[in-house]
Formats: sequence, structure tokens, C-alpha cells
Amino acid sequence: MLGLMQDWPLTVDKILDHAANWHGDREIVSRSVEGPIVRTTYGQVHERARRLSNALKGLGVQPGDRVATLAWNTARHIEAWYAIMGIGAVCHTLNPRLFAEQLCYIIGHAEDRIIFTDLTFLPILAEHRDKMPSVQHIVVMTDEAHMKDVTLPGALCFETLLAQSSPDCVWGDFDENTAAALCYTSGTTGNPKGVLYSHRSNFIHTLVTLGRDVMGIGAADTVLPVVPMFHANAWGLAFSCSAVGAKLVMPGAKLDGASVYELLESEEVTFSAAVPTVWQMLLTHMRETKSKPTTLKRVVIGGSAVPEALVRAFRDDYGVSVTHAWGMTETSPLGTLATPTARIAKMDAESQLRFTLKQGRPPVGIELKLEDDKGARLPHDGTTFGRLMVKGPFVVGEYFKGDGGAILDPEGFFDTGDVATIDDHGFMQITDRAKDVIKSGGEWISTIEIENIAVGHPKAELAAVIGASHPKWDERPVLLVKLMPGETASKDEFLGFLEGKIAKWWTPDDVVFVDDIPLGATGKIDKKLIRERMKGYVLPGAQAKATV
Amino acid sequence: MLGLMQDWPLTVDKILDHAANWHGDREIVSRSVEGPIVRTTYGQVHERARRLSNALKGLGVQPGDRVATLAWNTARHIEAWYAIMGIGAVCHTLNPRLFAEQLCYIIGHAEDRIIFTDLTFLPILAEHRDKMPSVQHIVVMTDEAHMKDVTLPGALCFETLLAQSSPDCVWGDFDENTAAALCYTSGTTGNPKGVLYSHRSNFIHTLVTLGRDVMGIGAADTVLPVVPMFHANAWGLAFSCSAVGAKLVMPGAKLDGASVYELLESEEVTFSAAVPTVWQMLLTHMRETKSKPTTLKRVVIGGSAVPEALVRAFRDDYGVSVTHAWGMTETSPLGTLATPTARIAKMDAESQLRFTLKQGRPPVGIELKLEDDKGARLPHDGTTFGRLMVKGPFVVGEYFKGDGGAILDPEGFFDTGDVATIDDHGFMQITDRAKDVIKSGGEWISTIEIENIAVGHPKAELAAVIGASHPKWDERPVLLVKLMPGETASKDEFLGFLEGKIAKWWTPDDVVFVDDIPLGATGKIDKKLIRERMKGYVLPGAQAKATV
Repeated sequence: MLGLMQDWPLTVDKILDHAANWHGDREIVSRSVEGPIVRTTYGQVHERARRLSNALKGLGVQPGDRVATLAWNTARHIEAWYAIMGIGAVCHTLNPRLFAEQLCYIIGHAEDRIIFTDLTFLPILAEHRDKMPSVQHIVVMTDEAHMKDVTLPGALCFETLLAQSSPDCVWGDFDENTAAALCYTSGTTGNPKGVLYSHRSNFIHTLVTLGRDVMGIGAADTVLPVVPMFHANAWGLAFSCSAVGAKLVMPGAKLDGASVYELLESEEVTFSAAVPTVWQMLLTHMRETKSKPTTLKRVVIGGSAVPEALVRAFRDDYGVSVTHAWGMTETSPLGTLATPTARIAKMDAESQLRFTLKQGRPPVGIELKLEDDKGARLPHDGTTFGRLMVKGPFVVGEYFKGDGGAILDPEGFFDTGDVATIDDHGFMQITDRAKDVIKSGGEWISTIEIENIAVGHPKAELAAVIGASHPKWDERPVLLVKLMPGETASKDEFLGFLEGKIAKWWTPDDVVFVDDIPLGATGKIDKKLIRERMKGYVLPGAQAKATV
Repeated sequence: MLGLMQDWPLTVDKILDHAANWHGDREIVSRSVEGPIVRTTYGQVHERARRLSNALKGLGVQPGDRVATLAWNTARHIEAWYAIMGIGAVCHTLNPRLFAEQLCYIIGHAEDRIIFTDLTFLPILAEHRDKMPSVQHIVVMTDEAHMKDVTLPGALCFETLLAQSSPDCVWGDFDENTAAALCYTSGTTGNPKGVLYSHRSNFIHTLVTLGRDVMGIGAADTVLPVVPMFHANAWGLAFSCSAVGAKLVMPGAKLDGASVYELLESEEVTFSAAVPTVWQMLLTHMRETKSKPTTLKRVVIGGSAVPEALVRAFRDDYGVSVTHAWGMTETSPLGTLATPTARIAKMDAESQLRFTLKQGRPPVGIELKLEDDKGARLPHDGTTFGRLMVKGPFVVGEYFKGDGGAILDPEGFFDTGDVATIDDHGFMQITDRAKDVIKSGGEWISTIEIENIAVGHPKAELAAVIGASHPKWDERPVLLVKLMPGETASKDEFLGFLEGKIAKWWTPDDVVFVDDIPLGATGKIDKKLIRERMKGYVLPGAQAKATV
């Protein structure tokens, strides 16, 4: 027997409808790519997005067509998202930090028909325009005045298209499983693969993130998503802020400490989300200028592990609460958050910190399991580490066009490629990427855990650990250190620093000082490139040649 | 094109799975119907609910069968809910406050095959057992020791059934639109009608209620749902607490001020939900005993309009935040909550109070509109009142077995039967039931607004307003007052009290002092009965006979 409740498909256009109906005068403030601060409202964004939907239809966009954005976080980018998704087309977010070759590959693979872009990215588009045969139109997200300098042949003006179009447009009215958005993984191995979100998955993700123990934002919040819309959907904030009527502050192209601080203060931001490097820049700026955030209450940090010093600085120096989060493009992206349970909330601050430094626990809707290489479940004891597997209504089922084949295990779980522990409080901690973990004498060594400790050495700017082949143990860890400018250090200084903080048999067999530790497009250490660079390296005392 | 995310049906069994997996040792504490405080955990409840599912299968329950509960809020009641819903049967909550004839009608209409009941309700079931031909088994939610006194022939023991059954049971694994639960409206006109919830509607309702601006509960909360599971699903708390791992404190049969206070303190409750009368009893108890709640942070109050004095007492005397909420059986039940927006949050306490006294604004997933009698939309100006219409994924689409026919308007909205205003902050306020509103000279007069003011008179215990027919104005209001014990008062005392607080033309034409103002099964004033009692009443000065 079926229930008799209303048929109300979960399509994301309804989220912006809600914002316009109930929070129509709530502001969206952007640092525009052209320079000035620009203010609009949910009501205006709603009206303009509908105009843009009509403009897209005028350009021949059909349901299911892919329309890309190569853009910073601004109100116009939000308008483009809702305009594309509202008519059943697929919004494909392009990450401008990718190499041009990767961008062209992704655009071609997605068969993008239109690209919305900021002025910033015109040079790269112009240079590679001939390698994007599927692209019929490039729409520059600016006004007529700024189009004067645009030399790209055939480029269209965003504001002109809007002005020429009617705001009367039917949104939604299709199956909630309709594709809404497409985002490619950064692809450290093989070609990038596309994750094709549905309206349903985005809507459910939005509802889940609104929970008090997840993002927990409300109508009274002012939210600054530093995390870009082009990378893992700004962690859902373009949807969740609309869903509750939170004021949105969009940072545009300027993510440096001074610019972020200026917006935090001028717009009275209460909540923000970003990767650790952004917060590091903000902290540096605040220390140098002896300034403090006066309205900021909470920051969510993810993308890579949060350094302890960062949590302490926010908590002790500025009274800002830090929530550590984990997720990936394949999980829409939120997977876990380190919000305290009742038992943890009753601990003293130092004990709580141990849990803040973990990636946290899943909200309802995310199932997690830990497995060994043979697929057997591992205990949640906080020390056993295994492959992290994830399942849920906003977790990838298969990649776009079937790339990579069947990607779920027999129980329907997706392999995150991460290696993790889960403790008896339910707190998950990533200990490594599965492909980076070092297998020494049949046991696993976490490279990330060693890196996190090593980078805490006052002379270290960056640290990376890779496995080098060893005749007896198969692999042994090698620590690479990029020192702070002007510093010098010895191998023993670093090995001594690690002593007592990691198991003795985890101690790296060597420390190599390097000029550069390369970062990938999403700001994470690029171990693939490091391994390439270290190809000829041989462990001291090991006769076998390294095969790293 | 369809998205490629995982197929993960929204079935409520997954909510309890989540609680058991991630909050398995979190407590559910019940004041048992037998007397003592009983402690269990989500892990145990999960295991026992699965045993009970097998017991139900053993009794021949098939997917789609209706299994009723006539029970207080206890852990066993939660076990019964999940056990029934987990195997695709329909959990039909019976309201013990209904007259026996209504109960028998509802049981017959639903074709309930089994009734789970507490010891409390055995007498009524025994007396009317022969009027429940569909019922094959009655399961008494107690242990073997307490079964000794049970004289109902064939009654089964809950604990014995559990002990005899295996915990290995597959839950879910069916369409998310499968019916999960059934609740009948109190039915002030005609027969009660059934609202048939689906797994999907309950799951989406749960996610929505978790939002910070809605219930906003988290894992660190301890929640006391005074609002019964048999009336509007305890406002979803049996699901939402499981979804976040909040500690649950179940009050059983004792809802008096002293008993509620005892649990608030002994279990360190942080959040509670109940109708105004319960809070009134608690306040009276605390005043008499000069006690205070020491851990309670927030109460959600709904079911009927919240008196101003109640909000002030919680806020000023006890530092507890009050959230006013509105909903109905047909909305699962949450429809609106008066959580502050940014603009309201910045107002002073007295200005904020004006909004707390309204029923509030809808979360995403609830669409509201105001209409006049001809179906034209009315403005959100805070003064124009009209019919309140509601739409969303957890709003009724049709009643069980098609009772009442097509109940949605052409736009898919359900008529709540309430008359309301919506102000320019988006805050809705119920001004009356559509059938109670007084039509005087073509204009509407809100009976509830007059009642709320009149009951604030220090001599008034209860107040009700009904329309009496009038030769010139069609209808005019009459105020009925039940005085506090031992008080006397004059008509002019009450009319003088209303002066300046309502429009002059709203002033009742008469004040009638009565011994009793009857309340219905859900604690609301029973105007149907009042109108019957006042049948012979004629307005002073009006020649026409009243037709009320």
C-alpha cells in the first residue's frame, strides 16, 4: 500500500522559490569580478535567474544539455546555477585551477554547449577556444560596459541577455531524479570522471546540511562561502543558504587574508566555510594587523586535514568555533562533520580538541563502513584503519557515461579511496589515501599522520611522506620537507621531532629537504608528481632501487 | 537525462539503523506505565524492534496491514512504531482521548488487525472488544509479571513475544512511497478521516525538522516529548531524535506539572515540546514549589495559540526560549515555526515577543498561501486575513480510502480550515478556524483573537467566542466566559477589558458567564458543542432567533 501524501518532487528550483517568497529582501552581497561590492536580494536573483532561463532557451538549450560555468563565487554565478537547473539542463562547474588540457578534456567529455565565464578566464578560453568544439556560446558574466574589452569572437554579454528576456518561466515540473549538475573529480589517476547530481540528491543534501549538527545555519546567519562553487558545489551553501534565507556574502576572486577579513567585518559574517590554507592566510593577516573577527561565530573547515594550531588559534585567540568536515565530489560533498556528541560536549576543551581534529561522524543519510583489502568489516576502535566506504542518497552511483565501470560494492557502498579509522564515539579520521598508504612488513603506515606532525615543526612550511621500496619491508616511509624561507635543518632534527608522537616502526628511514612540494588543483599535495620527481631515489642502506 | 547518484529509498527504518550504528549507547528513558523509570538505548531498541517485527510476521502481519497502537510515550511505543513500519505494515496511532464510539469507528475503518496497548487502556478495550471485528490480536505492552492481572481474553504479552522472536529481520527494501503510518483527524465535522503517511513523507519531514530554524535538535540534546505519539506523531520527535542521536525522555502516562518537572531535572532535559496546557501546569507547579528548570533551554509550543503570559514566564522567570509552532495531522505535523529572522533577531525583546506570539514561518518544503472565499490570493500585510492553504511533500494529498473526495485545489494546495494573516516578515498568525470565523456585515471577525485577549482577564479561566445571528449584520460575536473558582464579574468588566485591544466593531454584543467551556479530544475548545448548548440563545436587542 502506498501513502497518500502530496506528490511534490524534490527539485532545486523550489529552494530559490522559497527564498524569494519568504526571504525576498534578504541580501546576497558579492565582491564583483569587476571590482566593486554589489548588493542584490533573493527576490532579485530569483527574477533574474528566470530571465536567464529564458535566455538559455533562446540559445537553444534543451533539458539534459550541459551548460558550464567557469566562475568565482558571485550572485551572478548563483543566478546561472538556478537558471540552468530550473529548466532541466545540467550545470557543469569547471575548476579554473585545472590545467588547460584537463579543462578542454572535461568540456569535451561533458559536451558542454555553453560556458558562463568571468572576465578573469577569458584569456585561457581564448587561447584554447579551438579545442572546445562542443561549445556554441560563451557568455561573459558582466555588463555591456565591460564587454568593450572582450575580444573573444562571438562572446555574449550576461546582462544584455537578461535584459532581453522575460522573467516568466516555468521551472521544475519534471522527475526529481533529473540530472541537475555535473562536477568532475580532480583525477589524480586516469582521466577526470564526472559526478552527475540529480535534483533529488541536491535537495536531500541541502536538507541534511541544514541540521544543527551539520552546517546548522539559519535565517539569522550571514554566510561567507569561501569554498568555491566550482569545487564540490561550495559544500552546498548556494542551496542551503537559499533554503533558510541566510544572507550570502560572495567573495568573488579575492580569497587572500585581507580581502576575506574585510568582508567578514563589513558584512557582519557569522558563518564561513573554507579549506585550511584560506584560514591560514586569514590568521596571518589578523596577526599582522592585530585585528579580530567581531561577528564570526563558526567556521567549517574541510578539503584537507585541519592543523591543530588552526583550531587553537580560532578557539583561543578569537572565540570562533571550528567544525572539521570531510567529503568529496562524489558525496555532494558533505560526508562527516566533527560536531560534538553529548559525551564529547561534556569533556574539557583539550579532550574535545582530539575529536575536532578528526573528520567526524556522518549525519543521517550517510552510511559508512571500514573494510580491509579483502572486504571484511573492521572494528570501530579508533586504531584499526581500513578503506572508507560510503553509501547514501547523495553519494555517486556511477560516473558520467559509465567511466570507471561499476563502482559500488555488492552492498552498494562506494570506495572513497581514503583510509580511515572510526573510534567508539563514531568519529572517523582519515589516515591516508589508499594509494598513498605505505605497506611495510604487511602493516599499513599512514603518510598523512606523519605529515601532519612533521608540518608542525617550526622550521617546516610543507611536509610530504611517500613510500620507498625496501628489500626486506617492501616499503618504508621517506619524509620530504620544504623548509620555511631562510631556514636550515638536519635530518635528525625532524626525526627527533617525530619521536614519541608516532609508533617507532613508522619513523621515516630518511628525510629529504626539497625546494618545492607540489600542490594539485584542489590544494592538496600532489603525491603523483612527487613520486615522479623521486623516481631515481634509493633509500640509504637499501640496496634495491626505489620503485616509487 | 537522469542523475547518477545512488538509489537509496527514504524509508524510516534507516533512521533507527543510523541511531543504533552511531549513537547505539545513547539512552531512551521512560516513565513506564507500570511505574518505575526504565532505561534503554538506541542499540537495544533497535534490536528489540527487529524481534518485534518477526513477532508481527509470526502473527500473520503482511505489508500494508494496519497495526494500531493505543499507548503513551514510552520506549516500547517507539519499538512498536519501528517494528511495524520496518516491515512495510502501517502503524495506526489511536488517540485514547477520543470517545469509545469514535475509537471503534476508526479501528473498523482502518481495518486494524492488531492493537498494541498499555495496561491503562485495557478496560476500554475490554468493554468495546466486540465492536472491533477486524482486530485479531491485542498485544499488551508489558511483561509477563504484569500480565497476571490482564483478564482480556487472548491478550498477548509484548515482552513474551519479543523473547520468543529472532532479531534477524530485513527492514525496508521497498518503495519509499510505501505507507508507513496512519493517523485520523479529530473530526469536528463528519467522521474522522485518516491521513496515510508514507516512508518518504516521514523521512523528509524528519530532515526538515532537524533544521536549526525548525526543531534544531542535535546529538547533545536531551529531549522530552510531552506531546503524545498518538497525536500528530509527537511532532516527529520519535524520528528526529533517532536521526541525530538525542537522548529521549518519555513521560509515559504522567503529564502533570510535578511529574514533568521531575523528569526535566532528573534527566537533564534541554528541549521539550507540548501544548500550552501542559506548560501551564508546569508553571503552576514551579511557582507553587518555588522551583526552576536548571537544564531546559528551549520549548516548542503548539496545538493551540500560545498565551503571552506563558512566553513571558518562560523567558523572564526561567530563561527558557519559547518557539511557537503550528501544524496539523495533515502536515505530518510541522507547518510553521516562529523562529526569528535576522531582522527580528535584531529587535528588542518586547518587539520580538509580537512575533513569538504568531505561529511563524514555513521551512523549505512547506508552501503557504492565503486566499479569499473566491480563491484569489491575499496580500501578506499582517492584517488581511484569509483561508490558509498548504502544499508540500509531507502534506496530505487525499484521505484514506478517498474519504472527503478531492481535497486539493487546482494548484495542489490543501485547505487547512484555518483563517490566518501573514505579515511582511513572513510570519503567519492563525486568527480563527474558517468554520468559527464570524461574518459580520460582509467582514470577518476572528473569534480566537478576542478569546486570547479575554482569557488574559485576571478573573477568566477560559473564554470562547461564537457568532449569534443578527437581523442586520448576519452575525455578531458573543463572548462566553468561565470565571476562576469563586470569582464574580460583570459584562461591562469584560467589555471594558477588551476596549482598545480590538477594533470597536469586533466588540461582542453580549457576555455570557458559563460553568463550563468544553474541550475536545485534542485539548482545543469544542465550539461545535458550545453552539449546540447555545441553540436557544437570542442576542439582546435582536428580534431574530439565534441560529447558532
